[in-house]
Amino acid sequence: MIAVEAMKRVCGNNIVTPKGFKATGIHCGVKHKKHDLALLVSEVPASVAGVFTTNVVKAAPLLVTKESVEQTGKMQAIIINSGNANACTGKQGMLDALTMQKETAKKLGIDQNLIGVASTGVIGEKMQMEPIIKGIRKIEPNDELEGSINFSQAILTTDTITKNTSYTAVIDSREVIIAGAAKGSGMINPNMATMLGFMTTDANIESVYLQQALKTVTDKTFNAITVDGDTSTNDMVLVLANGLANNESLTPTHPDWEKFVQALQAVSQDLAKMIAKDGEGATKLIETEVLGAVTDTEARKIAKTVVGSPLVKTAIFGCDANWGRIIAAVGYSGATVDPNAISIQIGNTTVVENGEPVLFSEPNLIAYLKQPEVKITVQLHQGEGAGVAWGCDLTYDYVQINATYRT
Amino acid sequence: MIAVEAMKRVCGNNIVTPKGFKATGIHCGVKHKKHDLALLVSEVPASVAGVFTTNVVKAAPLLVTKESVEQTGKMQAIIINSGNANACTGKQGMLDALTMQKETAKKLGIDQNLIGVASTGVIGEKMQMEPIIKGIRKIEPNDELEGSINFSQAILTTDTITKNTSYTAVIDSREVIIAGAAKGSGMINPNMATMLGFMTTDANIESVYLQQALKTVTDKTFNAITVDGDTSTNDMVLVLANGLANNESLTPTHPDWEKFVQALQAVSQDLAKMIAKDGEGATKLIETEVLGAVTDTEARKIAKTVVGSPLVKTAIFGCDANWGRIIAAVGYSGATVDPNAISIQIGNTTVVENGEPVLFSEPNLIAYLKQPEVKITVQLHQGEGAGVAWGCDLTYDYVQINATYRT
Repeated sequence: MIAVEAMKRVCGNNIVTPKGFKATGIHCGVKHKKHDLALLVSEVPASVAGVFTTNVVKAAPLLVTKESVEQTGKMQAIIINSGNANACTGKQGMLDALTMQKETAKKLGIDQNLIGVASTGVIGEKMQMEPIIKGIRKIEPNDELEGSINFSQAILTTDTITKNTSYTAVIDSREVIIAGAAKGSGMINPNMATMLGFMTTDANIESVYLQQALKTVTDKTFNAITVDGDTSTNDMVLVLANGLANNESLTPTHPDWEKFVQALQAVSQDLAKMIAKDGEGATKLIETEVLGAVTDTEARKIAKTVVGSPLVKTAIFGCDANWGRIIAAVGYSGATVDPNAISIQIGNTTVVENGEPVLFSEPNLIAYLKQPEVKITVQLHQGEGAGVAWGCDLTYDYVQINATYRT
Repeated sequence: MIAVEAMKRVCGNNIVTPKGFKATGIHCGVKHKKHDLALLVSEVPASVAGVFTTNVVKAAPLLVTKESVEQTGKMQAIIINSGNANACTGKQGMLDALTMQKETAKKLGIDQNLIGVASTGVIGEKMQMEPIIKGIRKIEPNDELEGSINFSQAILTTDTITKNTSYTAVIDSREVIIAGAAKGSGMINPNMATMLGFMTTDANIESVYLQQALKTVTDKTFNAITVDGDTSTNDMVLVLANGLANNESLTPTHPDWEKFVQALQAVSQDLAKMIAKDGEGATKLIETEVLGAVTDTEARKIAKTVVGSPLVKTAIFGCDANWGRIIAAVGYSGATVDPNAISIQIGNTTVVENGEPVLFSEPNLIAYLKQPEVKITVQLHQGEGAGVAWGCDLTYDYVQINATYRT
């Protein structure tokens, strides 16, 4: 779906590779031992775009950051803690988020309005501000690989791996870099929701157009993943574009606009898939592609319903080619479907053709389902709409992680 | 919510207690060993009302039964098999469901249109009709307790217990009995959906009013439970009212109409709660009551979102008073809420008051969460709307059952 010739993925690059960005992460003491405080800084104020959780209950840092994004369109640094979400923490929570913003501004000598704040972790517990404030005073970001590794570790909660990616695109004959880091794992049903994503680019683009580009790609990437259907109170994706690549300012009429959007989409899609694959307790990435829907939106809705079905997820965990659960999920997705026109493939094996079961080799399909990535394709024969969604299997470990999260 | 003085629950009564009903269940051979074929018969044609799955993909027996209900408003017998859902089985599936209907009609010497057909089990596998036909030819229903026990066993799939209840109400100074049997367990997110429920009554009522009463109570009972959010292809609830209690025909203007509706609701609610409590792998029933919502419908929607949240379900399995997940679920329910006006109780312990965390005794709450029934109360302070939903915890056994269902 993404035209790869327009940009290229660059291995080893990371959120400090675009010109003028520094980052790091440290252990400040909210968590017992692990890194729990991260800072990202741009040399100059950057255009910013953000998408935020649709949950009516929004965490304090999210409200603070959203206001900055909307008021100024500019951001120069983001301070993030893990271990405590600072959500449902009342008035004190708002004061704590503002203190994080103010301390970071003081530390960096920049305006408080230019600081984003993000938190992730347990909901409903007051912040321990002493370690956070001490941490902010001592954290020293750098533009080395090591800084970005520490950053991407410090934003994690139950994630098992760090999530980084980077693409370049040539815009006005200049190389523009877009990079990103994210965390996910649980409470993942973005809409925009349920994870933290931070993208950096040295592209020159005003925030209004950056917001437009981010909105477009978010629906096809971060909003197309689900781990457990729960939409978090804290999730946000922020993109900082500091303009240091010195291209002519990007707008939708710029000849290289699509290249930029595609590179942004590529970064977002990589991060989204990494989040789905590293869902709590997951052993497999499930990708569902829906073709022949009435619209692209309906196709994505069906795809997301299939990857979100607990029965599909447990069947795939058990390497069970129980396609009845897939067609049942298609049926209750709420989208327009004709039961007698549905065809389903698991990998390359057709299991249903126009609503009728097809004989297939069960051992072959079981062997396929043992792979770490499983692809389901649903053809509806209703129209031209197409869409993809990503999820993961539902395992004993998901239950284990979430039954004992705070203990 | 149900005025208990209007009717009374009768222990030991069952679906053959109302006058003129017979039932039984046998092993015919679809399953390896267990009972898998059930028959319910009324002495005379009964008024019938039915509610059916909202899944667009509907099983063949459901289509056959729905047509009978809608065309005739009368039903005299229901034949049910477990072990195979006869869903997504194409044209042959329709022929098989019609064969079950025809064979039962022949066996009982009544019109084919008066026979309901229901199936539950694995989706997408062709029916083995030979054991079913042989079973229909030999099954002999009776009006003894033993017949109703065999009936309620034969309709089960992964259920661990049979589900029966019965209430009586005095209508026109005559005792009217309403009884029911149900199966549930997995793919339970009725809307009307995802379970089989059969209710019998000797009340005299025309099918149009019976349908009206059933619709009213279904929204508050069967549609207010969820096990895993998956909506099945096969679910239906049928009520047969054979009139043998000889009351004056019930209509909404009859002075005892409300008593009848309340007794029907009591039967439905008992069955619904039994289904939720016996959800696949469940160790606990979770009841969520929402008060102070804008409307009753929104209250039920929020209640159902809370009991359906995988994170709430796993926390309760782990006896973890992680109320942040409850408030997060309230927030993403889509209903009108003010985050700063939400109060939450778990059992009798207030954990959030007007959006602010409340200090509570964690050991006391853990002790409460170890009980087999857990009650969550959410007060929104937005209006007068109230509603209740029921669900169960999400456990290792849910994953185990569903990862290996067909193997």
